[in-house]
Amino acid sequence: MAEENTIFIGKKGTMAYVLAVVTQVNAGAKEISIKARVKAISRAVDVSEIVKNKFIKDLKISNISTSTEEISSDEGGALKVSSIEILMSK
Amino acid sequence: MAEENTIFIGKKGTMAYVLAVVTQVNAGAKEISIKARVKAISRAVDVSEIVKNKFIKDLKISNISTSTEEISSDEGGALKVSSIEILMSK
Repeated sequence: MAEENTIFIGKKGTMAYVLAVVTQVNAGAKEISIKARVKAISRAVDVSEIVKNKFIKDLKISNISTSTEEISSDEGGALKVSSIEILMSK
Repeated sequence: MAEENTIFIGKKGTMAYVLAVVTQVNAGAKEISIKARVKAISRAVDVSEIVKNKFIKDLKISNISTSTEEISSDEGGALKVSSIEILMSK
């Protein structure tokens, strides 16, 4: 998938990411990937639910997958964290 | 699914729920449903990842679904919250 169709969920408010998804779909994207790690995972689910229930009723969740990623911790060691990818498509 | 094969993720530490899943599988359960709402959603993903990566390698995530549930708020009104169900099976 094109990188520009991927939304990474971070620390902004939920509606900022809802707006990002809606904007990309209105610009013609047929498929959107919403990615998040650790605590942002809950927000990713919120974003996908709000988009399909309130904004773009014909956008469906086509797949949800989870994985474990290894990231470098601040102390230099490796840290395993959970991540989620929610695919939404028309 | 039998109610006893459903794990509701709450406010305990992640490993408490990992242990609950492992215990049920060791007791013969072939399918486990892990459910969570709102902020516990991230913990539900952690639990399923830890179980399959560290404890029961032949237990796979067979489906992940999300939904929006309406719950009563403390003030008496209705509140919409996101929820997740992670199905794990052998």
